[in-house]
Amino acid sequence: MEIIQAEHIMHNDPAHIRLEHDPKYAHGSAFINGVYCSIDEAAIPITDTGFIHADAAYDVVSASKGFIFRLEDHLARFEKACEKFLLNNPYSNSQTAEILTNLVKLAGTREAYIWWCVTRGQTPANRGDLGAYKNCFYAFVVPYAYIANDEVRSRGIDLMVSQKYIRIPPKAVDPTAKNFHWMDMKLSLVEAMQNGCDWSVLCDAEGYLTEAPGSNIFVIKDGTLFTPDSGCLEGITRKTTLELAEEIGMPTRVERVHVDQLREADEAFLTSTAGGIMPINSVDGKLLGGVAGPGEQVTQLHNLYWERRWAGWLGTPVDYREPATV
Amino acid sequence: MEIIQAEHIMHNDPAHIRLEHDPKYAHGSAFINGVYCSIDEAAIPITDTGFIHADAAYDVVSASKGFIFRLEDHLARFEKACEKFLLNNPYSNSQTAEILTNLVKLAGTREAYIWWCVTRGQTPANRGDLGAYKNCFYAFVVPYAYIANDEVRSRGIDLMVSQKYIRIPPKAVDPTAKNFHWMDMKLSLVEAMQNGCDWSVLCDAEGYLTEAPGSNIFVIKDGTLFTPDSGCLEGITRKTTLELAEEIGMPTRVERVHVDQLREADEAFLTSTAGGIMPINSVDGKLLGGVAGPGEQVTQLHNLYWERRWAGWLGTPVDYREPATV
Repeated sequence: MEIIQAEHIMHNDPAHIRLEHDPKYAHGSAFINGVYCSIDEAAIPITDTGFIHADAAYDVVSASKGFIFRLEDHLARFEKACEKFLLNNPYSNSQTAEILTNLVKLAGTREAYIWWCVTRGQTPANRGDLGAYKNCFYAFVVPYAYIANDEVRSRGIDLMVSQKYIRIPPKAVDPTAKNFHWMDMKLSLVEAMQNGCDWSVLCDAEGYLTEAPGSNIFVIKDGTLFTPDSGCLEGITRKTTLELAEEIGMPTRVERVHVDQLREADEAFLTSTAGGIMPINSVDGKLLGGVAGPGEQVTQLHNLYWERRWAGWLGTPVDYREPATV
Repeated sequence: MEIIQAEHIMHNDPAHIRLEHDPKYAHGSAFINGVYCSIDEAAIPITDTGFIHADAAYDVVSASKGFIFRLEDHLARFEKACEKFLLNNPYSNSQTAEILTNLVKLAGTREAYIWWCVTRGQTPANRGDLGAYKNCFYAFVVPYAYIANDEVRSRGIDLMVSQKYIRIPPKAVDPTAKNFHWMDMKLSLVEAMQNGCDWSVLCDAEGYLTEAPGSNIFVIKDGTLFTPDSGCLEGITRKTTLELAEEIGMPTRVERVHVDQLREADEAFLTSTAGGIMPINSVDGKLLGGVAGPGEQVTQLHNLYWERRWAGWLGTPVDYREPATV
């Protein structure tokens, strides 16, 4: 079985071609403090604590062939993230869904990367007084771009386990509430590239796997699928993968996974809204399962994932004929 | 000895009154991508990774009575922070100093809070390729406001040791490089307020003191001054305090400090550019040294600090008669 060339297929699908839209939104659309605008002019006040203190929760969902995937799951996760960080989304979930759908229509793309956040807003005189903050909602939509393209997914990612960095622990910042605290992940990516790898993964202080930058990690050993139960985002693609695995009869275990289990795995992969299912070729230079390229089991999951996505599975269709209600 | 009413003195000093300036800058001034503007219109592109990934280094310096305090020290610390995070300030230290001085002149205030940062900038196709990023410099100046006012400093801060949160560990994000990763600190502040306290302090996973939100912590026991050597920002006010202590013959020890040492301290205080030296009254409801209010030793340090600042000690004078070179 070969890895489906998902990027290639999507970009050559006539339905993918950008729909007629205002050239103002050529690079994407945004929603800032209640006003729709082009991504080119979308900006955040410099003193917003979402910027100066990473004091925010966010989420990302994607649309493929005009279907927004598991929108309700993303909205529910975002709602919980706001609760965990004591933030209030000024919009209800249905209003948020309407704003995001409008942004997809304005951007006029069927393959969309859809991002939104709530920030704490400006600092009041009393910084600990939650009631004194006015939380702010911001969102944008840009054309979808894979974080690992067809070529990388077909040969498999060369992964490095970061030596320099550990992931921020949950007792400092809860990773199940999607947040802006990315410096550990960003610098581990640089470390990986400097060591000839494509991507990095971070452990906790005890050497257990947490997550990769923007991605969850999965390990397959003797036909069983393992993924960490803590220290990481509860990814929607992770959830989807666990469901697909059960559907094809692959046993799953969500528990602490030591980095040595990754090194000794038969197959492994990353999952992300911005990348789908991304097979791993090697870990710290050692080929997984002793052979190059994606294994059979991850290839099966990868292809099943995209076939389902393209069929509109768990998708909210965007009606592009209806103009955006802006 | 009484705590000097520093805020009161500064705000009633005729020299403090806002100088003549363009009303456009009434709330402050900013410098965004090479252009000076009012703080009211200062904004960051929504897709800058300084926002969406807290991928940035920053620093803050203050001016009092028209003197910028230890500017060279702040510039040197910021330069090191950029190195630690693999960021490049597009401006030299002398250019940065000129921009900051211009911002103080535009804001027209002798008591200034001066903030600047370098962000990683927009995400390129290859996120781990440092050369593909164009780092961005942003800065702003607003009138100085104490994070603990005269009333709070005079009675002393009621401090809470966070139970819910630990500080992000250095192996995840290096706290000696001043950064936007503040969620642990922000939520611990809320925890403190909800428990009737003024401010919080965070420990590491082993119960050693790290730092308080935006502040370093000091403990005095039997005449010796202690402050943590790791897990915290190497604050310029912290450095200044250590120097003042040595000057008045107070022995100092920079080493790991357990939270129990704080609870059993004779006196304790926080230091910060945005607050100076801030005496602590109680820890988790227990009065330090068994008596209410700031102790003699912290009061001596507090007053010495402000007398020196007002005399222009280690200060770079701003020549307000010379117009800003914008």
